[in-house]
Order: sequence, then structure tokens, then C-alpha cells
Amino acid sequence: MRAVTATDFGGTDVLELCDVHMPIPGDQDLLVEVHSAAVNPVDFKIRRGAFRDRSQLPMVLGFDASGVVCAMGQRVEGFKSGDEIYVSPSLVRNGSNAEYVCVDARTAARKPRCVDHMTASAMPLATLTAWEALYERTSLERNETVLIHAGGGGVGHIAIQLAKLKGARVLITASRDESIELCLGYGADVVINYVEEDFVKRVLELTNGRGCDVVFDCVGGEVFDRSPACVAVNGRIVTIVGSSESSALRDLFVRNITLHFEMMAAPTMYNINPQKQGQILHEAAKLVDDGKLAVHISQAFPLVELAEAHQLQETEHVTGKIAIQVR
Amino acid sequence: MRAVTATDFGGTDVLELCDVHMPIPGDQDLLVEVHSAAVNPVDFKIRRGAFRDRSQLPMVLGFDASGVVCAMGQRVEGFKSGDEIYVSPSLVRNGSNAEYVCVDARTAARKPRCVDHMTASAMPLATLTAWEALYERTSLERNETVLIHAGGGGVGHIAIQLAKLKGARVLITASRDESIELCLGYGADVVINYVEEDFVKRVLELTNGRGCDVVFDCVGGEVFDRSPACVAVNGRIVTIVGSSESSALRDLFVRNITLHFEMMAAPTMYNINPQKQGQILHEAAKLVDDGKLAVHISQAFPLVELAEAHQLQETEHVTGKIAIQVR
Repeated sequence: MRAVTATDFGGTDVLELCDVHMPIPGDQDLLVEVHSAAVNPVDFKIRRGAFRDRSQLPMVLGFDASGVVCAMGQRVEGFKSGDEIYVSPSLVRNGSNAEYVCVDARTAARKPRCVDHMTASAMPLATLTAWEALYERTSLERNETVLIHAGGGGVGHIAIQLAKLKGARVLITASRDESIELCLGYGADVVINYVEEDFVKRVLELTNGRGCDVVFDCVGGEVFDRSPACVAVNGRIVTIVGSSESSALRDLFVRNITLHFEMMAAPTMYNINPQKQGQILHEAAKLVDDGKLAVHISQAFPLVELAEAHQLQETEHVTGKIAIQVR
Repeated sequence: MRAVTATDFGGTDVLELCDVHMPIPGDQDLLVEVHSAAVNPVDFKIRRGAFRDRSQLPMVLGFDASGVVCAMGQRVEGFKSGDEIYVSPSLVRNGSNAEYVCVDARTAARKPRCVDHMTASAMPLATLTAWEALYERTSLERNETVLIHAGGGGVGHIAIQLAKLKGARVLITASRDESIELCLGYGADVVINYVEEDFVKRVLELTNGRGCDVVFDCVGGEVFDRSPACVAVNGRIVTIVGSSESSALRDLFVRNITLHFEMMAAPTMYNINPQKQGQILHEAAKLVDDGKLAVHISQAFPLVELAEAHQLQETEHVTGKIAIQVR
């Protein structure tokens, strides 16, 4: 079959049209006759070597597909030959820039009936990304405010629609006229031209200084780094890129991790739901009285010896707690 | 009243026992006769200037208290004079290193009856931190595996007990004999002596290479940076310290933010719940057929022109999607 393969990691000159063997479906696979594929930023990232340790050369890129099922493995359920399906092929197998592709049947679905293969093929990766980010990771809720960076992009313009379907207020960053128009057309409430104005300042203005509930970052780098400043206390950020500066954060991305910051003083500092802390302490007191929770005090000081207590705490080798007797 | 005040930011020499005015309770406040307080790492951090912009000098530190209610504001409900309460006073008001402290009544609760004021005073800040981190942020579940860094510390030893109460498997890092013994006494399943062995390697061994579901990081720095490597795909990390390297992360901590990384390829790369993606695409197809979701294709290329499509995508100024026609 015909395919475009990447013969090496590098620029677009590594892409080569050639004849390759037909892929053979595994037990859970569909063999799909590809009608249309789509391009995503991940294509050029992998081409440049982003998953170098997981990619075998030569490789076929293409992580969106719409086409027709023509064969399948013996454990596949719910599909038959001739079904028109759309799917995002695995990043670590050969993709859809070819006449045929094998995909895990469980990750595929029948394509929307009212659109053609080309339109259907433009959807899977961006839709899965936006859906998982807004509906699963951050659990965006009705009447919350979400800021979507790069609303006019592949993921962004799907995200606008999903956020509006949920009943959220949608703020967008975009700069080109074409993008701005697209975002407004898909229902964005406010488009912030980040080239002409400071998006942090504008988001704070638009939310009475509170910040938005959710930031969906499809850009990364400086945009990621500046996003915490425009999220509300207790808010959520979801990024599909991550900060460039820390390898720990890159690890978090590849493993799809959620990182929580626990700042127990937030309710009292910002006066947000302070009664929750009274409730927790009430529950904890019951556990103590039931013999289910205990605290370990390794040393106690009178108030006049507070400095000594601080010095001990500063060793960072305190077992359990240090108490201060006031009376 | 007598109090120890910090007269400046700096070392323990800024702490000074002196006579200060009694605090006056606001509408929602309890005036508490302090019987006992406790010390936490946040005390020396604030003393050194961590909240410099929010702290007024001279200030009274001390963010744990147990004592007796002796007066209250007019809007307080649920307490009366003489009640024995325990509470974590606000980080941005004067604290409990004094004979009296004012606290928001909503954040207080009656102290456990079966323990004395000293024991009760050692609980609030650490308990709230551990409770919020495990039960609210990460929603630790029965039979999940949690790694708690510094299990013998103030927060850590409470966290062990809360995790065991939830039915989780609890792995701990600790190094001193006293800490290790304390952790085992409170029910830790495995204590990893991180000085003697590599905690990442050991956690992977203990979880058949999968990693743990939740990491609770009470240490930060290098321990935070190395934690992603021992969390399972789709896992959660909660930190009360955060990485030292990025100011964006410090912002996240102070605003109590949750950071999600969305890597849509994770289900297929790691073969975890791949059918979820088929379900999402099925739902999305229905939305398209109902006219509620659309995709915007700004340009289409034939397969032989894939390199041009990549080049366009690499400009990072694509509106919507680029399609590739295969047949």
C-alpha cells in the first residue's frame, strides 16, 4: 500500500511517499481503509523526535482517521466490515498517513453520519483532547468561567463548543482576525487579543478581580507560566503542553498526572468556605474520641521558650509535633 | 496580655516576649483563651518573611490553638463562652503564641473530649492539611496505593492514619529510627528508608512497575521533582511545598490550584481504559449529527503533499484543522 513514511527524525525532508506492507490487525484491532486523515502539532513533534525512545523508524505518522472497516481481529466486538468509523490511531503505532491503518477497535466509533470522511477525520484527536480536558480532568461546570488559550486552534475551537454546551462562560485568547471570527462564530463570550492587551489583566477585569475557574492552556511556555495569575483561588488549570522549564513537569504530562497544591490556609486567607474547616475539625475530633486518630507530640515548650521551639522545627527533623504551653 | 511577637523578619532573635493589647473579636470571631499552641514549619517560614506582603509587624505567630471561648462577635452561631475549642488561626492575622487569640468561629470546632488542650492544639493545622490533601484534592480511595513523603512529620503521621482509615495501602519515606517506628505504629504498610535506598525504584518494585496512585509530598525540592517517576499513569500528586524552581508553581501553591496534564494518547500508549475513547467519539458523533458540534477545516492536502501540510502546521498559526485526503 501507499504511505508517507518518516525515514528519520528531522525536518519535512524526512517524509517520503513509498510502498509499504499492509498492516496486519491484532486480536483487538480494526483494519481501516483510510479515506481521510488530519494533521496535528503532535505530528511534527514526533517527526522531530519527541517520542524518540518509543518510535521505530521508518514510521507512518497521522493520528486522525476516518474510513471504512475492511477486516478485524477475532476479539473485536461491535463492528463489522463496511462500517464507516473515525478514530485517533495510537501515537506509538503506525498512523493514518497511509491507505490502511490498524487501530484498537475499542478506541473507535462510527463516524457522524451527516458529515463526510474528511470532516470526520479532522475531529478525533482534537475532540478527545478537549473533551477529556474539560469534562474529565477539570470537570467544568455550568456557569463557571473558562479561559481557553488559542481558541482558534484545532483543539481550541472544539473546546469552545464543548464549554458552551456545558453552560460555561467562555473567554478566549486569539490574535488573527480569522481566529477571532471563528471563536465568536462558535459562541465564545469574549475574545481577548493577547497581542494588543495583557490577557491576565483583562481576565481579572472580566471576573471582578476573582480570576476564572478554569484555564485550558493549548499554548504552553510563557502563556502557561502567566496563567496561574488569572485563575481563581481553588481553580484548575489544564495544559496539553506544560511549562518548558521543568523536566519534572514534562514527566507529569507524559504520564497524564494531576498535580494538586494543598494550601490549608486558603479558606481563611481568602475567606472562601471557611466553615469547611470547622466541619473537618469536628469530624477529626470524633475520630480522636473514637480512638481512630491520634497526634504524636515529641516535645513541648513553654511560651517563653518559643525561639527554641522554632529552632527545633527548623532542623526539619521533628518527629510528629511540637507543642507550646501557653498557660 | 502576654505574647511572643516577631518584631522583624529574620532569625529567632526577632522573637520577643512582651505585653500587647488584647485582640478584639470581629462579628464572626471567637475570642479564645489559649491553653496550648503548636509549632509548624509555616511559623519559621513566615518569621523569615514568606508572606512579607501580607504580614504586618510586629506580629504574633502560632497557627494551632486549643483553649476556651471567653467572648464572641454578634454573628457567631454554635458556640458559647466556656466552650473548649481547637482551631488553626488564620495565617494573615495574629496567632496563638499569646494568652488570647481571635479566630473566625466558622473555622473552629469543639476539641476532642478525651484529650487535653496540649494534645488538641497539636492537631488542627496538620489534620486540616492531611485531610484536605487526601480526602478532598486527591480523593484517595480504598485499595489505592499512596506514597507519603516524610511520614514521621507533623502532617505525615496524621496522613498515614487518614489514609489507613480510607482503606488505602500506605508507603512511607522516612529515615530516622524514631520516625520509622512512629510510621509503623500508625499503620504504614511499608517504610522506605530513602537514605539507604532509591525511593523511586522501591515504589516501582512494590507496585509491579505501575507506580502508586497518589503521592503526598510534604518535602518539596528534589523529592517533588523525583515523584512523577513513581506515580502511575493518570495518578495524582499533592504537594504542600511545590517545586522550588518555578515561580509559576509557587503561584499555584498560594492560590491552591489543581494542575491537570491532558495527554490524550495515554489510554492507547499504556492500554488503560481505551474503550473510554470509543465512548467519547460515539457521544461526539451524536452531537455532530444533532448540529451541536462542528469542526473547522481551514485547508486540505492530498497525501502526497503531507510535507506541505506539516509546514503549515508548524507555523502554529493554523485556524481549526488541516485535513489529509488519502483517497
